[in-house]
Amino acid sequence: MTTNEALFNYTLRLGDTSLILAQRLSEWTGHGPFLEEDLALTNIALDIFGRAKSLLEYAGQTEGKGRSEDDLAFLRNDREFFNALITEQPNGDYAQTIIRQAFIDCFDLLFYTELAKCKDQTLAGIAAKSIKEITYHKRHSFSWVMRFGNGTEESLQRLQRGFNNTWEYTGELFEMSEVDEVLLKNGIAVDLKTLKPLWEKEIFELLNKANIKIPENTFMQQGSRRGLHSEHLSYILAEMQSLPRMHPGAKW
Amino acid sequence: MTTNEALFNYTLRLGDTSLILAQRLSEWTGHGPFLEEDLALTNIALDIFGRAKSLLEYAGQTEGKGRSEDDLAFLRNDREFFNALITEQPNGDYAQTIIRQAFIDCFDLLFYTELAKCKDQTLAGIAAKSIKEITYHKRHSFSWVMRFGNGTEESLQRLQRGFNNTWEYTGELFEMSEVDEVLLKNGIAVDLKTLKPLWEKEIFELLNKANIKIPENTFMQQGSRRGLHSEHLSYILAEMQSLPRMHPGAKW
Repeated sequence: MTTNEALFNYTLRLGDTSLILAQRLSEWTGHGPFLEEDLALTNIALDIFGRAKSLLEYAGQTEGKGRSEDDLAFLRNDREFFNALITEQPNGDYAQTIIRQAFIDCFDLLFYTELAKCKDQTLAGIAAKSIKEITYHKRHSFSWVMRFGNGTEESLQRLQRGFNNTWEYTGELFEMSEVDEVLLKNGIAVDLKTLKPLWEKEIFELLNKANIKIPENTFMQQGSRRGLHSEHLSYILAEMQSLPRMHPGAKW
Repeated sequence: MTTNEALFNYTLRLGDTSLILAQRLSEWTGHGPFLEEDLALTNIALDIFGRAKSLLEYAGQTEGKGRSEDDLAFLRNDREFFNALITEQPNGDYAQTIIRQAFIDCFDLLFYTELAKCKDQTLAGIAAKSIKEITYHKRHSFSWVMRFGNGTEESLQRLQRGFNNTWEYTGELFEMSEVDEVLLKNGIAVDLKTLKPLWEKEIFELLNKANIKIPENTFMQQGSRRGLHSEHLSYILAEMQSLPRMHPGAKW
């Protein structure tokens, strides 16, 4: 695998993860529990969509076959997507959406803070721009986790259920492949092994404060690094891609 | 009708019009023709949601019965909504959404520029904040109308069809009721009769440049000033209100 091939796949992984997460979050637009939260979640989705666009644009440039960010977003099938599995899981109720977001925000803040120091100027630039946004997202999701966990009996139950449905998808965030190894040698990728203990420390602290029971051992799902996904991704893509595919190459 | 009753209804009219329009626009989130446009339309929807929230909050204060903006958004039925009919019409294709938006942006810029000068400090403040946003929205929708109208044969046809489906809902924007009369006497409302020729001048110029055929006479729809709506509003409300109504007064 050449450095360039690895960079293409790595950038796709980041771009797809952002794209599918933003797509999921935007399902809440106009359906949130309060107008205030509708606005907050939609703002967060927009930040993440913006990052996806930048990353997919760069992926297209890296590949060098003239594919735009729209081509990559709309004209690939599920086996060609490399988004983390956690992002394609259904939103569930608001508590589940929030705890998934807390897991991802915590990971992303650690990850993009490191990526901002990498040798690839474009990735470093996109990462640097994202840090401020993710800091805000994390404050939002963490404070809601605390609020659910220390609210009513029902809100705690919902948070626990959301946790139970999501926890098994967190392990994959730290999975490394040949792509990571090739890029690490070139000072580009982030070493995910070093992030894991930092992430666990923060997340366990949060979960404890929110009265969440954490199981001793959990089988962790994998697959997205190889383009293997749950059926949920197909539905997301069907919805997201239907219009552009109906009019391929349409010049409006 | 007291001034206060009129102010409540007037503020509801403005708040509902923004809320339902934002709700319609947000249906495009994740389904736009290009990522770039997804982002643009979602940003526009967010601005309009923000305005809706401020207006409904003020409506609640004006009413003085302790209703919050969430109560007003989620716990009224369609007969209690006063949004302009044009906002509840289905999006149609992208060209139809855009031409509806051009009609509304043009109206809103004229309207809120005047409202910013009114004697009610809160309405004037919300209006002043909106002017900058609407200026951007209008630039966006107008430029797309030009692009569709001077693009391919198909894009022109789509624009014309979008125009045909929407035009009959524009007359109502200028309809005045007792509410307007009461407030005009107090230096609060905007005189819509004076806006109409300004709006027509701009819109006819735009439509001409975009090669749109305008019919001589059109029967113009009415009803929203009296809480009469098309069936479309019921579906929007069903979707928007289902979650909050499922858990009334939920303390999360």
